[in-house]
Amino acid sequence: MVRNILVLGAGKSTSYLLDYFLEKSAAENLHLTIGDIDPKSVPEAVRNHQNCTVFILDIFDDPARKKAISEATIVVSMLPAKLHLKVAEDCLHFKKHLVTASYISDDIRKLDAEVKDNGLVFMNEIGLDPGIDHMSAMQVIDRIRAKGGKMLLFESFTGGLVAPESDSSLWNYKFTWNPRNVVLAGQGGAAKFIQEGTYKYIPYHKLFRRTEFLEVEGYGTFEAYANRDSLWYREAYGLQDVLTLYRGTMRRVGFSKAWNIFVQLGMTDDSYIVEGSEGMSYREFVNLFLPYSPTDSVELKLRHYLKIDQDDIFWGKLSELDLFNPNKNIPLKKATPAQMLQYILEDSWTLKDGDKDMIVMYHKFGYELDRKKKQIDANMVVVGEDRTYTAMAKTVGLPVAIATLDILNKKITTAGVQIPISKEVYDPILSELKAHGIAFNEFDAPYLGYNPDSVAG
Amino acid sequence: MVRNILVLGAGKSTSYLLDYFLEKSAAENLHLTIGDIDPKSVPEAVRNHQNCTVFILDIFDDPARKKAISEATIVVSMLPAKLHLKVAEDCLHFKKHLVTASYISDDIRKLDAEVKDNGLVFMNEIGLDPGIDHMSAMQVIDRIRAKGGKMLLFESFTGGLVAPESDSSLWNYKFTWNPRNVVLAGQGGAAKFIQEGTYKYIPYHKLFRRTEFLEVEGYGTFEAYANRDSLWYREAYGLQDVLTLYRGTMRRVGFSKAWNIFVQLGMTDDSYIVEGSEGMSYREFVNLFLPYSPTDSVELKLRHYLKIDQDDIFWGKLSELDLFNPNKNIPLKKATPAQMLQYILEDSWTLKDGDKDMIVMYHKFGYELDRKKKQIDANMVVVGEDRTYTAMAKTVGLPVAIATLDILNKKITTAGVQIPISKEVYDPILSELKAHGIAFNEFDAPYLGYNPDSVAG
Repeated sequence: MVRNILVLGAGKSTSYLLDYFLEKSAAENLHLTIGDIDPKSVPEAVRNHQNCTVFILDIFDDPARKKAISEATIVVSMLPAKLHLKVAEDCLHFKKHLVTASYISDDIRKLDAEVKDNGLVFMNEIGLDPGIDHMSAMQVIDRIRAKGGKMLLFESFTGGLVAPESDSSLWNYKFTWNPRNVVLAGQGGAAKFIQEGTYKYIPYHKLFRRTEFLEVEGYGTFEAYANRDSLWYREAYGLQDVLTLYRGTMRRVGFSKAWNIFVQLGMTDDSYIVEGSEGMSYREFVNLFLPYSPTDSVELKLRHYLKIDQDDIFWGKLSELDLFNPNKNIPLKKATPAQMLQYILEDSWTLKDGDKDMIVMYHKFGYELDRKKKQIDANMVVVGEDRTYTAMAKTVGLPVAIATLDILNKKITTAGVQIPISKEVYDPILSELKAHGIAFNEFDAPYLGYNPDSVAG
Repeated sequence: MVRNILVLGAGKSTSYLLDYFLEKSAAENLHLTIGDIDPKSVPEAVRNHQNCTVFILDIFDDPARKKAISEATIVVSMLPAKLHLKVAEDCLHFKKHLVTASYISDDIRKLDAEVKDNGLVFMNEIGLDPGIDHMSAMQVIDRIRAKGGKMLLFESFTGGLVAPESDSSLWNYKFTWNPRNVVLAGQGGAAKFIQEGTYKYIPYHKLFRRTEFLEVEGYGTFEAYANRDSLWYREAYGLQDVLTLYRGTMRRVGFSKAWNIFVQLGMTDDSYIVEGSEGMSYREFVNLFLPYSPTDSVELKLRHYLKIDQDDIFWGKLSELDLFNPNKNIPLKKATPAQMLQYILEDSWTLKDGDKDMIVMYHKFGYELDRKKKQIDANMVVVGEDRTYTAMAKTVGLPVAIATLDILNKKITTAGVQIPISKEVYDPILSELKAHGIAFNEFDAPYLGYNPDSVAG
């Protein structure tokens, strides 16, 4: 009997996801149905595939959405997270499994009892981050615990970057995902984590000055700044007694220190509208954040304000963005500083034809076993093929696709609203991801606790 | 016929206000009725005065509140601003005039047409700031305009400080008003103003590093940081075409640079609860915001983090607060960083018996007259008598009291929801304030436009 997989939303992160289903469609008896508000965004090769149907779907059209879900065997929602609830409620009503790559909302979490009663699997957070991070971390943590080890430290870092061969910017960065999220990263409250049993808080305006370094063999050195809330992972991973818990975002060394210039100036602020934003030059935009002077140049005022030497690499980074150009204009009406900055950055940081992206993930697991303190480090690098077959699309789409088929094939059967932290889920998926080149390099490291530099010094 | 003045809320800022009414009560035929949730807070001399009645009033007790208002000739509300609406609605219903020192809320502004129809005066923003600032500024602006001058620049600064003779802190600061407002000052969005026709925005974390200096004869040099929104005053004062509009808060020189340490560390954040706040030592509190180290001291970590030399005056300021004391504890449950910082500061910055406060206000008016650019500067200093008869209570309470009597005596008759920016209001009030020692020192200054240092250089 043909199993009908309904994919809702076929945005740019779905290339690998759709291909995976279609490649398996004959052998696995699958039919792929794609509902999207703009079906033209689905590649022709997918649309014309004999085992694929694409139709226009407005997710707010209740009858159409319900009809599509009622006809599916399983539903994959690649919609924005805030649209998942309607889909989840329909899936419950029509008794269909559901797979998403988004964080579980409180509303969806509340459906857990009913989902269990109906023997359904609602698998969430099964993309890259969240997703591969959960699975790869829990596989190591469970192994340590199975040997009798006690977790002391867990740090985890992920970055969506440009591949070294396409890295033509002084910032060592290009947008490979939603640029708006990059501009707003870290906002909305202090970063919170634990280091050696002590709570630590970093305000937004210091976030990009409190980085740590990470070495990845063959790829050099990276830095990481703290994500907003690391404490949540205590519950999820059962790490209530751990001394150090830290999650961060990876960038190439030097990015954060330069990004901090924008933060310090106030250019990442999304809370107010700039007067007269439309048509403002890049140079005028910079000058909004600098003291008035009838004589001094914007350049000198900025250097003086943030104490940047003229031969500092910072300066090259700012110049590369054409930030002081009086003739380039921002066409945005009623824009916030963050929106205007995003416009300027997209001018420089957009992937060009042939550019490849890169995903890097790095975990550290500190533990005590037989009264000895030990550490395992694990990292993963995935390089994209081109602007469509990106490492981001691969690492987000393949876990979703594999989980979907594993649920259909009853490899994953435990019912409930869940994230991929059980062995039943992560073992088969990580093993299949390995076959697709998504694999972790794992090695023992000396356990030095947090802030090993100071210990060694 | 006796006129009955109803004062709602008799907090610590009402000493001069109540005395003013009672001193005039015989000659002016006044009876003072004070409604407060805690009548014991009203001084005995006031309570026992023959022309005064004090009663317990819960402002949320609708019948009691309505009864009191219905029996009044005029109502003075010294309640927190958010409680004014009920009072204003009752005043409208019973056709009573209303005086408050608070900013007009949108809800109260909406009553304007009805207030006018009933021939009532609802006078708001008639304390110090807002209040004396409106009146003193508009008096000069109207005079410049009457001569045919065109306004180019308006800058206005106010500070609630400690008097020089009571200034025993390295910070040259003590709390003379609500400490919470001081800790949270500048938060909630970027500061916005115009300098020489150019919009300028300062994010919170830079606010205390963008000060300007002000000289007051006989009192030395002050500094000022920008208030949140200076642009509102364009409408209120009719300054739509002005090139420079800037409002700020005054401190003694060096305060802001040192206060910036708290901002940079994240100690003024009021958006989250610190884990385990209750019983935390001052030293542990500081360490929350510093990187973990198994060996380095909190002191050295802070110096390094914020690049403070050990012989910097900053260091003395921090030490004076006993910030690194491991034995002094913060007793607050579920407290935010801002609440914990406030507790530590109150330990050092509370006025002692005999300490006097000081209010400083400084205006700059730039204008063009007969094709010449000119400037008038005006400043005011008021020193308090003691902890009850503070300069703050005097400068907030007297304008409220004088306006109340002026309305009763029909010196102020124009109806409507208003602020004190018309000649009818400010002339008699400023003239009477002068007799109480609240006076401006006015002088001509060379007009250099904004940022005169650069022009001169």
